[in-house]
Amino acid sequence: MTEASESPSPSRRKRQRQAEAAADAGTDPAAGQSRPIVNPLRKLDFLSSGQLEQIHEASLSILARTGLVFNSPPALALFRQAGARVDGQRVTLERSLVEAALATAPAQFTVYARNPANNVPIGGDSCVTMPTGGAAYARGLDGQRRPGTLADVENLTRLSVMSPEVHLLARKAVEAQDVPVAVRHLECWRTVLTLGDKPAVSGTVGGEPEAEDVLQMLAALYGGEEAIQDRPVALCNVNANSPLVYDRPMLEGALAFVRRGQPVILTPFVMAGVMGPATLAGALAQHNAEVLAGMVLTQLARPGAPVIYGTATSNADLRSGAPAIGSPESAISIGACAQLARHYHLPCRGGGALTDSQLPDAQANYERMMTLMISVLSGVNVMMHGLGTLDSYLTIDYEQFVIDTELIGMLTHMLLPLEVSVDSLALDTIHEVGPGGFFLDAPHTLRHYRLAHFLPRISLRHSHDQWLAEGGLSATQRANALCRERLASYRPPRLDPAAEARLNDFVERRKAQLLG
Amino acid sequence: MTEASESPSPSRRKRQRQAEAAADAGTDPAAGQSRPIVNPLRKLDFLSSGQLEQIHEASLSILARTGLVFNSPPALALFRQAGARVDGQRVTLERSLVEAALATAPAQFTVYARNPANNVPIGGDSCVTMPTGGAAYARGLDGQRRPGTLADVENLTRLSVMSPEVHLLARKAVEAQDVPVAVRHLECWRTVLTLGDKPAVSGTVGGEPEAEDVLQMLAALYGGEEAIQDRPVALCNVNANSPLVYDRPMLEGALAFVRRGQPVILTPFVMAGVMGPATLAGALAQHNAEVLAGMVLTQLARPGAPVIYGTATSNADLRSGAPAIGSPESAISIGACAQLARHYHLPCRGGGALTDSQLPDAQANYERMMTLMISVLSGVNVMMHGLGTLDSYLTIDYEQFVIDTELIGMLTHMLLPLEVSVDSLALDTIHEVGPGGFFLDAPHTLRHYRLAHFLPRISLRHSHDQWLAEGGLSATQRANALCRERLASYRPPRLDPAAEARLNDFVERRKAQLLG
Repeated sequence: MTEASESPSPSRRKRQRQAEAAADAGTDPAAGQSRPIVNPLRKLDFLSSGQLEQIHEASLSILARTGLVFNSPPALALFRQAGARVDGQRVTLERSLVEAALATAPAQFTVYARNPANNVPIGGDSCVTMPTGGAAYARGLDGQRRPGTLADVENLTRLSVMSPEVHLLARKAVEAQDVPVAVRHLECWRTVLTLGDKPAVSGTVGGEPEAEDVLQMLAALYGGEEAIQDRPVALCNVNANSPLVYDRPMLEGALAFVRRGQPVILTPFVMAGVMGPATLAGALAQHNAEVLAGMVLTQLARPGAPVIYGTATSNADLRSGAPAIGSPESAISIGACAQLARHYHLPCRGGGALTDSQLPDAQANYERMMTLMISVLSGVNVMMHGLGTLDSYLTIDYEQFVIDTELIGMLTHMLLPLEVSVDSLALDTIHEVGPGGFFLDAPHTLRHYRLAHFLPRISLRHSHDQWLAEGGLSATQRANALCRERLASYRPPRLDPAAEARLNDFVERRKAQLLG
Repeated sequence: MTEASESPSPSRRKRQRQAEAAADAGTDPAAGQSRPIVNPLRKLDFLSSGQLEQIHEASLSILARTGLVFNSPPALALFRQAGARVDGQRVTLERSLVEAALATAPAQFTVYARNPANNVPIGGDSCVTMPTGGAAYARGLDGQRRPGTLADVENLTRLSVMSPEVHLLARKAVEAQDVPVAVRHLECWRTVLTLGDKPAVSGTVGGEPEAEDVLQMLAALYGGEEAIQDRPVALCNVNANSPLVYDRPMLEGALAFVRRGQPVILTPFVMAGVMGPATLAGALAQHNAEVLAGMVLTQLARPGAPVIYGTATSNADLRSGAPAIGSPESAISIGACAQLARHYHLPCRGGGALTDSQLPDAQANYERMMTLMISVLSGVNVMMHGLGTLDSYLTIDYEQFVIDTELIGMLTHMLLPLEVSVDSLALDTIHEVGPGGFFLDAPHTLRHYRLAHFLPRISLRHSHDQWLAEGGLSATQRANALCRERLASYRPPRLDPAAEARLNDFVERRKAQLLG
């Protein structure tokens, strides 16, 4: 065997070169192409096939016997037309309706960014991330927690643009509490759509009117309604109001997205013991019934509409009733839901960087690494809370956001296909260096130096003395400095002035109407 | 279906009840029975079967062509007798010798504790832990790093006894630098054997004389040489001096263990790029050759002797040459080695709670959760650095030790068999509570309250206000308090006075000889 005859696989090479060249130069990887985590390994299965079947059958039994409440006349009308039993707002569903819907919902699709380099694949082996969604508070670089503002939405969008580990933007990484509720969706969506060139995600707690505004903004940006009809450009998350209720505003907002062929994420948040049984099997059966019912509705509204199997299901801490999202039960639930979604050939949204900690401390980081790894290894496709989460979703933290880019980078790297080739096995080099030898100056090492290993931006491997000499900083302190650098180096991505003008026209017109 | 007809599986119930009753009562789980982590899931495979075969064949090629240096006349004699080619200290091995050795090395065995409740299974689906080994420094509860002392060995043994998440004791959790080198092994082994009633692990850098002392101490404690002959009661770790060298002292110490049928762990520590090729495939091929060569030697010395496939292989940070044990490459290496060990039907030692951080901070905790999870999910059986590691193995930290008991508890719980039964699916309860209802006060919840979920000791799920009201402590600060509690509540396990007298007699006699 001679080693020079092969070189690292082009894909691995290409994916690392940009990031590592930048790291070598002492600057961050520039804004631009971000690639999903790809997990080519066999996915982790928490459930045996028999258990999966038991949970599936239990969910069908819940749908047929207990049913769900849909607080929405158009939703009820769709169910009635399809032959479901509708009793007041209570809908019970037979197996055949579920099976028909599963047959039309797609297994994967692409979300198109305004910069095509940032298009996002949803499904298959890929896993994409976004900042946590729906936080009420931001913990800033001064370590203080305070109500979120529009400036935070701007900053978190900038950080998302500057981080190749982020694939989707969050319209609601934090609530912009300094903007009047009536026009908040307009200002926040304008912010993410103009400062960032990756696709964005939001819920629609404002209902159909809010959703229609957002869809009009997307149409304005992308060049007209026909440019986004059945061409996914943003995602809409709808939470079930567990147990077994879908509320009108979110649901009807989601239906507006469904009618345009824009993807909808169906996300029950069953806290086992409070909003569902304390036992995980029961919580999962109920969760699964809630997803399936929502999925049936989307396929009745528009057969073939892209829909994502979502989960935020975990347990409550039964000593206090508080949510526990960084718990082992959370990890099991993520894994089991990803497996159910895979069984149904639906993309899965769930998990991410989860924690119940109030600080970016040890707890925040062991909990989130657990849930991130289970998400990625179990085959989750979208991590809606991929960066910055603290405080059981209530807070987004700047320092932790930057730390999370490192975690995502580590897991991305860990799952790159391992190259086993004549060159990488390096038998000639091993023979030449020989017992007791030294590889650091071997030509093979020099040739692989830059591409062989992950180059961290936060983690240090310094000796104790070297670390002390450089100030003895914690990882969080280093993240603080890196976060300032990234914000300072942000440059807005190119935006077609005509599209921007159309978007601003619409926003200003609607603001005048809504505030007037 | 009616739910009352089934109750949680007895195994799950039993395993949780003790810990949770103790947690409820506000005290720690008492010293006593510690059960291994059991991973019943299909193990993670980082390598395709083709890649595994390529690495195996590359290792055989290294053994046959390049060979290893064994700085030990008795080892060289064993190889020569077996027909291996021995050229000076250089030994090359043919495939047939490797295959013959693999055929006699056992796939699993038990290590017998002096308290039979603490017997430790090695192999199969189980994974057991111990404090990090070989640290030079201890970081105490005052946050200061200092050279290790015998008092640290005592304290870390006490913490190990008080933590059901710890299965094996470390004779060298930290170097007792205040004890003269000549008698250090005697004092440290006496400490772990008398303060703790779990089996202990060590290396034998002092060579055959040290190993013979240790084996005499074990014989004294267990009731004579015949009581430990071919009955594992302690483990001996031997590091290859990579690349491709086994040094005399450790090797001959290990051979003394092998002759008694005491298990030996063969652990290359190939830092890819320094002590092996920069490319992981090459580092793994070399690593694997080093393990296989050591394994052949053990089976030549005593066919059927228990032996463990070890790994500390990772990468060097190629910017500084420093080891990177909390890196993605470390995780890949742990996973690949566990897979190789499984392929050979050998138990695997590797991974654990690894980090290069100097503090029990965010980095320490995301790195260790990554390596812990990969270890457990890949099928590692023994995590020699399971608790307390900081600073690329150089420091053991008291606070992090206690945090690590929580991490191990979380992973143990995550992998308990999920119960899917009529009772746990809770369909009647879901129906009775119904859409929009509340489960916290349902009889099913009350019945499952105490056994359903993991009860953390370090992680908090407090609201921000509640957390502030209780002092706004970080996880590390809470661990500090819990560590003090555990040390204060330590009670020595019962020890047969005759055995203790025999042990002390031996130690005092040898000390007089060695210091005299």
